Amino acid sequence: MPEHRTSRQVNLVSRPDGEPVESDFEVVEVEVGELDDGHVMVRNRFMSVDPYMRGRMNDAKSYVPPFAIGEALAGAAIGEVVESRSDDLAVGDHVVHPLGWREVALVPDSQAQRAPEIADVPLSAHLGVLGMPGLTAYAGLLEVASFAEGDAVFVSGAAGAVGSQVGQIARLKGASRVVGSAGSAAKIRHLIDDLGFDAAFDYHDGSLTRQLRDAAPDGIDVYFDNVGGDHLQAALHALTAGGRVALCGAISVYNDTEPAPGPGNLTLAIGKQLTLRGFIVSSYDHLREPFLDEVGGWIADGSLRYEETVVEGIERAPEAFIGMLAGANTGKMVVSL
Amino acid sequence: MPEHRTSRQVNLVSRPDGEPVESDFEVVEVEVGELDDGHVMVRNRFMSVDPYMRGRMNDAKSYVPPFAIGEALAGAAIGEVVESRSDDLAVGDHVVHPLGWREVALVPDSQAQRAPEIADVPLSAHLGVLGMPGLTAYAGLLEVASFAEGDAVFVSGAAGAVGSQVGQIARLKGASRVVGSAGSAAKIRHLIDDLGFDAAFDYHDGSLTRQLRDAAPDGIDVYFDNVGGDHLQAALHALTAGGRVALCGAISVYNDTEPAPGPGNLTLAIGKQLTLRGFIVSSYDHLREPFLDEVGGWIADGSLRYEETVVEGIERAPEAFIGMLAGANTGKMVVSL
Repeated sequence: MPEHRTSRQVNLVSRPDGEPVESDFEVVEVEVGELDDGHVMVRNRFMSVDPYMRGRMNDAKSYVPPFAIGEALAGAAIGEVVESRSDDLAVGDHVVHPLGWREVALVPDSQAQRAPEIADVPLSAHLGVLGMPGLTAYAGLLEVASFAEGDAVFVSGAAGAVGSQVGQIARLKGASRVVGSAGSAAKIRHLIDDLGFDAAFDYHDGSLTRQLRDAAPDGIDVYFDNVGGDHLQAALHALTAGGRVALCGAISVYNDTEPAPGPGNLTLAIGKQLTLRGFIVSSYDHLREPFLDEVGGWIADGSLRYEETVVEGIERAPEAFIGMLAGANTGKMVVSL
Repeated sequence: MPEHRTSRQVNLVSRPDGEPVESDFEVVEVEVGELDDGHVMVRNRFMSVDPYMRGRMNDAKSYVPPFAIGEALAGAAIGEVVESRSDDLAVGDHVVHPLGWREVALVPDSQAQRAPEIADVPLSAHLGVLGMPGLTAYAGLLEVASFAEGDAVFVSGAAGAVGSQVGQIARLKGASRVVGSAGSAAKIRHLIDDLGFDAAFDYHDGSLTRQLRDAAPDGIDVYFDNVGGDHLQAALHALTAGGRVALCGAISVYNDTEPAPGPGNLTLAIGKQLTLRGFIVSSYDHLREPFLDEVGGWIADGSLRYEETVVEGIERAPEAFIGMLAGANTGKMVVSL
């Protein structure tokens, strides 16, 4: 039996109560099983840890069903086809697919997407800047928030995979001002010095409303919300008439065990005629082609930068996930398998 | 000096602290003054009391400046031109204008709109079903919330001027289900028996989330929010994927002295891909003509009904306003002068 016939995977042992802890997860070795017709066997090289996965760990109705206890987690991964019973995919192809959190996956070819070859871009980028987080940033800013040249843009979680790309796309598309918030002085410097943000602040440094007013004295036209909670409240204060909010994530409350109160100033949306729109990236597949063209070009010519925080080894995937929720990453957090 | 050269008006004496009380207001008699070129003198017949006026009584930045202490309040009124120095308006014309809360007003003709004559419709209807509240309902449902035939619609404050019209327009435009909330058993009966709502409930009768689920077991596609607070939270639970919310008013919090917490479940908007959009009717003047055509037609053929609660005499205007905020009205609350 070849080496890849067994695989380590990460199972969910218990549903996290608040912040996940390592004992909520277990790394086990399993038999890979038989390859069905129309499937490929993929040796995963990188797997993604993303904020939305926290929601699937609860036993709650959401837009995706919850993870099952005692079974492997799942999420985006990129790997190499090592065996194929598909007419479309061949051994050696690199594919992105939704069966991460394991070393070897049996993937129906309908769920495996061949990763376009882009010079000087590592495989892991297909989980970040050229993957789901990248498309989330692109679609959320340009379509959900209807960004237009000259808009002042605020993005929270700005040093994360999605946020860092939102700010840069806004800059490259002619924003009048790009402001971000993040959770450390080093991240703030990174946003301003490396990514070209006009201003950035650390959300630990006191009133968000005041900090945002200082960072964007003329207000903001677009808020890209990765965080929820107090950040949304501060943004509602700062938004100008006709302003738009893309509701993308709420990482500040994902670990909450009680519902957090919503923004106490939501009624400002009436007089300012604001639009708040929630979205999930799977509804924006129609933008994948322009997204890859445009962002691929910006990466190639160096005008858009991206960072990755790479954790080595499947046994450290739970640690990577827990760290990502706490802001341990700059840019996209991935696990190398 | 002719009788109309003096006028009683209602001044704001003090900014209400929470619920307004009669002593916040004062009825005084004043000289009307000289009629400038381009102005008309209007003997007001009816004045409007509307929820948004509560906001203007606070000393707070809003989309309209606050009322000044010691000066007359203002708001929509309809009256008869009794003197004219305008080329466009003649003595005897009926005009709608923004200088209510007084018996006689000197109005620039640019701010006075001739009321179209519609058979069997009283003058006061131009402050309600055919006026600003009517256009608010029409624009908010059809344009802000992008209502489409087959949508299930929930409207709060459903027995009020705006709400009662929202529900009926939804019914007449082919809603699959129309649900309303209001504050008394009599209002609930009125909504179902007189206005053709499919279901309605009294917000005093326990959990709004449960009541809304019972009233709309398959969920709602559109929520027209006149109330804010808990109603919005219940609606977020009930909204289907792609649902839309028109944020029109928040009468439940207008008298609050502390900011009320927002809906604790706003993050549902992400996964359900909801759109929440605030609006003010002054941005929807472009719909006035189709609104008057369509709603005028429905009134004429009896398919749209409207109620008015009429309070007699300017000295009772503060009482009418306070009562309207507390839900004393069914349909539009007006003061006959």
